[in-house]
Amino acid sequence: MNRIPFDEVMQTLAGVLCKLGFSAERAQTCARLFTETTCDGVYSHGVNRFARFVAMIGNGCIDVHAEPRRLGGFGALERWDGLKGPGNLNAQTSMARAMELSREHGLGCVALANTNHWMRGGTYGWQAAEAGLIGVCWTNTMPNLPPWGGVEPCIGNNPLIIAVPRPGGHVVLDMAMSQFSYGALESYRMRGELLPVDGGFDADGNLTRDPGAIEQTQRPLPVGYWKGSGLSMVLDMVAATMSLGNATHQLVADPLLETRISQMFLAMNPAALADGAQAAAIAGEIVASVHRCRPEEAGREVRYPGEKTLQIRAENRKLGLPIDAAIWAQILAM
Amino acid sequence: MNRIPFDEVMQTLAGVLCKLGFSAERAQTCARLFTETTCDGVYSHGVNRFARFVAMIGNGCIDVHAEPRRLGGFGALERWDGLKGPGNLNAQTSMARAMELSREHGLGCVALANTNHWMRGGTYGWQAAEAGLIGVCWTNTMPNLPPWGGVEPCIGNNPLIIAVPRPGGHVVLDMAMSQFSYGALESYRMRGELLPVDGGFDADGNLTRDPGAIEQTQRPLPVGYWKGSGLSMVLDMVAATMSLGNATHQLVADPLLETRISQMFLAMNPAALADGAQAAAIAGEIVASVHRCRPEEAGREVRYPGEKTLQIRAENRKLGLPIDAAIWAQILAM
Repeated sequence: MNRIPFDEVMQTLAGVLCKLGFSAERAQTCARLFTETTCDGVYSHGVNRFARFVAMIGNGCIDVHAEPRRLGGFGALERWDGLKGPGNLNAQTSMARAMELSREHGLGCVALANTNHWMRGGTYGWQAAEAGLIGVCWTNTMPNLPPWGGVEPCIGNNPLIIAVPRPGGHVVLDMAMSQFSYGALESYRMRGELLPVDGGFDADGNLTRDPGAIEQTQRPLPVGYWKGSGLSMVLDMVAATMSLGNATHQLVADPLLETRISQMFLAMNPAALADGAQAAAIAGEIVASVHRCRPEEAGREVRYPGEKTLQIRAENRKLGLPIDAAIWAQILAM
Repeated sequence: MNRIPFDEVMQTLAGVLCKLGFSAERAQTCARLFTETTCDGVYSHGVNRFARFVAMIGNGCIDVHAEPRRLGGFGALERWDGLKGPGNLNAQTSMARAMELSREHGLGCVALANTNHWMRGGTYGWQAAEAGLIGVCWTNTMPNLPPWGGVEPCIGNNPLIIAVPRPGGHVVLDMAMSQFSYGALESYRMRGELLPVDGGFDADGNLTRDPGAIEQTQRPLPVGYWKGSGLSMVLDMVAATMSLGNATHQLVADPLLETRISQMFLAMNPAALADGAQAAAIAGEIVASVHRCRPEEAGREVRYPGEKTLQIRAENRKLGLPIDAAIWAQILAM
């Protein structure tokens, strides 16, 4: 594992993107989003996913020149076409527009069709929270999760993000609808560990904590069994209905061909109706109440969503980003 | 178990409410919401909860005369004070106002403080969907659930509702953040059954399917362990921040004294930007795709959220509502 300085990572990625036809400015932004994701400790969706992103430029799923286009608007609500542009740039533009709408209307929503994988969804939650806004967004995905009661991957793991600004560290929930991602299952298996809780079904149809058994059946569990299964369905419905874009069942179940997906970006402006400081203090009081909760293990405080991120971010900024040597070599050769 | 006709149940409840000081019109609406909840099969939150509702009028938590008051508005967003009015009436009024806003602005949101338990949250999802709108709402609750990593009930089970209109039957997700409610644990225990999946911790701190063991430790599981725990926290944060109302940690942990809670009502108008019929068809296609998924048990189709409701509703309308004889006798004596 190398430790590579943030700026070196970002400029290296930006250089590759320029070679692939990105404008200098868009290359910088796109590279920054990848780099920040790794810096924040979401390794699966940062630099480690860059090669796949480049491959999808190569196979035509991602159009490096495309920028999202506004198809229509009605008050606080707009519908946009992502035109198969880079998913993280499209998502950032869409959340920025939802934020702008929320400053005009109290709320703002952009429903985006025909976009690509946004990499780390939390990125757009942080974006809203940094501006003092509540951000809510979600995406549909290719079918990659069996619904409760089904044995085939017919629903998406459709990550949902809810971010609340908080002085001293924003609260950013970023949860996919599978209890464990395939990436997480692989990590547990390679470390020779069982999952901390049941994560899916084995070949006999029994719930299991064995990550390898779940990889074999391809039957990971939805979060909360029937509940996350239902939540995945309605998130898909709202995204597809509002954007008039594709639903999960219309997407190709191949990570390299997963494109033209649908996303929702929603911003709420707490300061529109209230003293901003008063509103901002509320999240802090809730965090304090959570920290006062008696922990299961003494000394191990109950955490709020996103609590670890600032610590990892600071450490990685200081020490450099931990990047697998083979992955880094591959990027340097691009 | 009695089977009592819908109208008889509703008029009986309305009669009690009139005696308690409700206006005739509000008594009818409030009684209808209780009756519809039982008719839809959500027995725990319908007629079975009426005695508690009456007790909370008696102890001053619920003010039968209070109607919600608009405190401020900015475009699509409004803040209202529930003034401790009846929770179901307040919620219905708030969703109706969010729906109205969504017709003017594409989106609409009412953030409601100082309200009471809304009984079945799904009611307000059905309300939006019946009007062709997407409805999203949630409430905070008194502390009744230990967060992941904690052993005390410091967070709420904060039900979340997402409803999508669909010709042939709306899709209505109504999920609390606990995997099993205390009501569900009790039902399993009384039937002598284990839970179908782990539902909480036993006295040794191990996950268990034994409902009685969880009732003893008071440590039910959040949906999806750490994920539902985090989702509960952010739902509480958004509701309290937008309404400037109480957060879970400020509420009394006693079902008879749980009042002045905070709720969010959000409506989205798919027809604002699209051909209504095109948008309406999308949910239907997603439902069809879910129904095509190969089921775990042959012949037992994968279901979408709310699918069973219409069937139960029709059956109860036809046969009468199943109501425990003792509960019904208690209501007749009020």
